[in-house]
Parts: sequence; structure tokens; C-alpha cells
Amino acid sequence: MNGMRFETTGNDDNARTGRLELRRAVLETPAFMPVATNGSLKLLTFRAAEDAGFRVLLANAFHLSISAAMDEIAAAGGVNAFTGWDGSFLVDSGGFQVYSLAENRRIDDNGVTFRSPRDGTEMRFTPEEIVRIQTMLQPDIAMVLDECVALPAEKPVLEKAVERTSRWAARSLDAATDAAPPLFGIIQGGLDRALREKSLKEITAMPFAGFAVGGLSVGEAHGDMYEVLDYTAAGMPEDRPRYLMGVGDPVDIVEAAARGIDMFDCVMPTRNARGATAFTFGGKVRMKNACHRGSNQPIEAGCDCYCCKKFTRGYIRHLFAAGEATGAVLLSVHNLRFTARLMEGVREAIRGGTLADFRARIRQAYPESMGNTTNT
Amino acid sequence: MNGMRFETTGNDDNARTGRLELRRAVLETPAFMPVATNGSLKLLTFRAAEDAGFRVLLANAFHLSISAAMDEIAAAGGVNAFTGWDGSFLVDSGGFQVYSLAENRRIDDNGVTFRSPRDGTEMRFTPEEIVRIQTMLQPDIAMVLDECVALPAEKPVLEKAVERTSRWAARSLDAATDAAPPLFGIIQGGLDRALREKSLKEITAMPFAGFAVGGLSVGEAHGDMYEVLDYTAAGMPEDRPRYLMGVGDPVDIVEAAARGIDMFDCVMPTRNARGATAFTFGGKVRMKNACHRGSNQPIEAGCDCYCCKKFTRGYIRHLFAAGEATGAVLLSVHNLRFTARLMEGVREAIRGGTLADFRARIRQAYPESMGNTTNT
Repeated sequence: MNGMRFETTGNDDNARTGRLELRRAVLETPAFMPVATNGSLKLLTFRAAEDAGFRVLLANAFHLSISAAMDEIAAAGGVNAFTGWDGSFLVDSGGFQVYSLAENRRIDDNGVTFRSPRDGTEMRFTPEEIVRIQTMLQPDIAMVLDECVALPAEKPVLEKAVERTSRWAARSLDAATDAAPPLFGIIQGGLDRALREKSLKEITAMPFAGFAVGGLSVGEAHGDMYEVLDYTAAGMPEDRPRYLMGVGDPVDIVEAAARGIDMFDCVMPTRNARGATAFTFGGKVRMKNACHRGSNQPIEAGCDCYCCKKFTRGYIRHLFAAGEATGAVLLSVHNLRFTARLMEGVREAIRGGTLADFRARIRQAYPESMGNTTNT
Repeated sequence: MNGMRFETTGNDDNARTGRLELRRAVLETPAFMPVATNGSLKLLTFRAAEDAGFRVLLANAFHLSISAAMDEIAAAGGVNAFTGWDGSFLVDSGGFQVYSLAENRRIDDNGVTFRSPRDGTEMRFTPEEIVRIQTMLQPDIAMVLDECVALPAEKPVLEKAVERTSRWAARSLDAATDAAPPLFGIIQGGLDRALREKSLKEITAMPFAGFAVGGLSVGEAHGDMYEVLDYTAAGMPEDRPRYLMGVGDPVDIVEAAARGIDMFDCVMPTRNARGATAFTFGGKVRMKNACHRGSNQPIEAGCDCYCCKKFTRGYIRHLFAAGEATGAVLLSVHNLRFTARLMEGVREAIRGGTLADFRARIRQAYPESMGNTTNT
């Protein structure tokens, strides 16, 4: 598990800045990683990620497995060689995706059996199989197999998931050869403090290269997530990167960073773009709204992305109205750049000791993320 | 009708090279113009057109009208200001699109009434209205309203269309103020030599900035199209650009260029890309074919596009198999660049006096375009 170096470089209360050196890129933290599930950003080429300032993307072992690309990727020499991306990949185990299959999967103590949503083939993930796949994929960061539970959940269900997640984590480390990529362990436990703390203690006692908080942003209220992060992030080792999985809401990002989280990933920037919603520092902007008709303003004044430098809200609205996918392409470019700038803002605020002000500013711009609503 | 200067710079038999200076760009001819119907390339940003070497795009007054963007475009100051494209636009009148509506349009001697395929609104195009719209859009080249007939067609139908097209052409010129963009007249007549020659004579007698051959590539065999071009292109004024509308098949392009055509447009490069077909100098390549699985070869060796420089056939095939639109994005990038390189090849061959060899090479690579099949 070589190929990773992490150091914290500053802090503001519980928030911290850091530098994560990976085999193919350096990540200034807190950082966001765009999602490239199948080894490709939705609608965009890798150039768009680079232009927005991203050097680390997230891919998914579950999706790469069901698209039956595994043998090709192995033959190519890994996910970077196969996809042509010369930055870093973090490859998720796909635990979350498998558990989302509901009636089409069966969990036992040794792993999870599921039917491919693509062609119905029966497939099986075990902790060892995921480590084998990750060793074949050779990403710069690899997630182990965990058991993720949708919320709300009964205590026995959460309890079982925490136990399995710990046992699977240990088995993952046992299965890792010298050729394995740096592995991250995942903390589960839902909203149950005792279970979270048990999972935290057990997982962080193992020699993982970094630690992730899983099983959040799965249906709970924002406030409940922040409460879990209060004690979970605080208990995570200071000298290892802390990764909050699946979170991309601007308020969630600043709140989690304030609690000491270093890394984020989410489909939100690109998925919202396809749904015609732009993120800005002034809040969400619905680009299908008639009020943008004829507007000669950019999506966000002061934004340095290709979309904002070259195109008007009126034109973007027209593209969505005319059914031109290029509207979603341009909005994806903007939303990725917005998210990169949000992270720059977080890091700058931490360095300057002004994160409280920055948090207040983002909370004000995104009031809908502050209610007791679920994070969709 | 200022803002255009054309000169021929060389020839090889009937083929010629030329230089068309437009208000916003210079077109080295023979040239291809990618289609940006609604003021946007399908799936791509304008950067992709620029990267492929294109400075002139085609937009469509019919599509811009039904997407109800006209008043916005007028308020913005024209189609360039509205879309942010700083190269040239050629704006088609939409005659072809209106006639494609079949039972939802009614033609009379004064114009055509149709129902918007978008919301059913009744709309009307007259020659004067199209000139008014074009003056509002301010493209670098504007097409007049013509009557395009689907083939095969009865002689009386073609006859009527030729008559109307000539009358409408004269009315268009009468309606054009000093503020009108350079107008191109359109020659009709289907596959009927007498009617084509009548249309050719009448249209080219009028002081248009350039002349187009319309009503081809609408269901006829390739050979029939070449026969029409033999006598039509030969009869078109030498000192004006000659534009063959809606043609983008590689063999059709070289055959038409050999007959003296200077300009082309077609949806083929981007539409074929969305259908997973790549154009190469070795012929069409179907990227969904299993034979590309695991291939570490580029779409086309020696191609300098982003897709060929960075990605393998195996990866592109995987993207299509996984349902990732980025596959179509990358293939669109390649097909546009292929078409630009095809035109570079045509110009170079004309300059070097080797067009016959180049034609033979393209015909050999695309045998399916040489049969007595329709051009789809």
C-alpha cells in the first residue's frame, strides 16, 4: 500500500487543509472528486474535468463490473490505461450500489450476491474479490467492500452491517498483496451514535491509508448528518485523509469540512446540470425558468468557466428549451467549475481563519439545504 | 449585400480551390460546414468545431423560429451575439425542413403555412419573411426560401417547384435591404435535366452572392445525383461560390468537389457519431462491434483529434456498451475532424492535380456509397 502521502497543512477550529500526494496527482484538501462511474464523466470529456481544475475522479467497481469491462481493463493494465485519464482515480467498491439493488441482492456474512441490472447475470462480491478487482484496476485510492444501509433503518440491521463492515475490512487488509493500491476503510453505523462509535473505533484501529464515512446522505435530514459528523470526524485519525462518501450539496460540503472532512464525491454537479439546475455562489438557478429568456447575463458573474465566459443565460435556456444536450454539457462545465471554486473557497477560508463566515455565506445561498429535508 | 469576397485559386479539371472571405471568417474551399441547427452542435461545444478546424457553421431559420428564439436573437443583435459563436454562420431558410413536415404544411404561390412541430402553432414563411428573419439573424451567409421536393417526384410537381423557387428568389432580392446579409439563391429541378437547366438559368441570372444546388440527397441514388451535378455545377457562374446542400457522405463530397462544388453541409458526422459509426480514411467503423472489445488502437491511426490522440477503440466501445453519452461526444469530435481532414485532402489533391487518385481512394474506402442505394 505505497503510493500515498498525506499531511495536514493548517486548520481553523476543527476544519483543516491538507495535501494528499497520490501516484498520479496531488489533491489539495478539502477537495471534491467528480464522479466518472464507468470511467467517464457524464456528457463530458476528461478535458472538462482538467479545465475545471480536477485531477482526481471517482469510478465504481460495481459499474465497471456490470459493464463487463473488467478483463479489458486488466489487459490494458488498469483503469488509467484503459480510460486514458492521466490523473488519479479513486475507485469505490460498489457496496452502496449493490445494496441499492434491494430485492435483487442477497447479503450473507461472506459477501453479497446480486443480479446484474444490465443482463440479469448472477454476480458475487466478497471483500477478497473487491481487493482482487481493485488490484487489477490499480486506482490511486481503492475503497474496500462495506455494507451500506438505507436510512431510516432498524437498530439490528445497522448493528449487523457494522459488524460485517468491520469483519470485511479486516479480511480486505488480509487479502491485500504488495500490489494492492492504497486502501481506505469505511465507517458505518447510520445515525446511531453507539454504533457509529463502535465502527469508528474498529475501522480506524486497522492500518488503512485513509478512512471514509459511509452510509450518510442516504435519506436522512441534513442536521442528522452533521450530528453524526460532529463525533465521527472528530474521532478519525488526524494523520489520515477523511472522506465523506456521496456528498456534494454545497451546504453539506462546507458543514462537513468545518467538522474536519477532507474529501468529497457526488454526482450532483453533473446530474443537476442535466436537470437544468446551475449552482452559483448566490444559490441554485433553474435554467428552464422563463425569467432567463433573453437574458444576456452569464450563469454566474465572475465565474471563469468556459460556459460563463462565453455564453448567456438566454442562450443556455434556449438550448434546454430546444432539447439540445449541449445545454446540459455547458451547465455541467459550469457546475464542475463552481464546485472546484467552492472547494477553493473552503480551503482559503480555513487558511484565513474565516470558515465561519464562508459557511454562513453558503448556508444563506442554499436555504433549501438547511431545512429538515432529505438530501436528494 | 456586402461582406463577402470570393476568388478561385486553382483547379484540377472541373474541381477548383477557392477562398471565401466572410464577415467573421475565411473559408478555404472546397469546404464543409458542420450543422448547428439550433445554434449549437449536437452534444458539443463550439470549441470542438474550432479544434477540428471549422470556422463556419450552419444554423436553420426554421428551427430557430419554432424554438421561439427569434425575438431573443433580434434583441441580442443577431445569431452570433445570441449564441456566442465568433466564427461565421450560414443560415438556411428552413425550406427543406418545412417541406419535410408533409401533411402539416400547405404551400401556395406566396409562401408556406405550417404547424410548429413543437407546439402546433400555425406559422407562415414567405420569401419576404425569410429575408426579414435573415436580416434580423445577421449570419454571414443567408439562404433564400425555396421549394424543395422529395424524390422521386412527378414532373408537374417539380415544374411547379422550379417556377415558385425562381419567383421567390426574385422576390427575396426585392425584399433585401442594404442591411440584409449576403444571400444565396437555390437551384431546384430534381433529377429532370430540362427543369434543372431552367432553374439554373433563371436563378444564376439573378445577382446572388452565391448559388446553391438544392433538392439533392433527398432519396435518389448517388449516381443520379452525380449526373445532375455534371451539368448543373458546370453551368454555375465561376466567380461565385457553389454550395451543395445537405451532402456529407465522403464519396458524395469528393464526387461533387470533382464536379466543381465548393461548399457542403450535413448532419452526418455528428449523427453517425451518435449512432456509434466512425468515419475513417479506411471506411466506416461500427464502434459497437465486438471486434473492438479490448482494442488498444485509436479510431484512426494518424488522426490528430483529441479522441484519437487520447482514447482507444476498446474504451470508446465500452462507453457505448455502458450507455455513456461521452462515447458519442468523443466520436463526434473524431468525425468532425475526419471531415475537416477529408476537405484538406480534397483541396490538397486539387492543388497537386491528383484529385482522381484521391477520389479513387475514398470510393474504395466507402464502397457502400457507390451502389445504387439511397443516401441516408
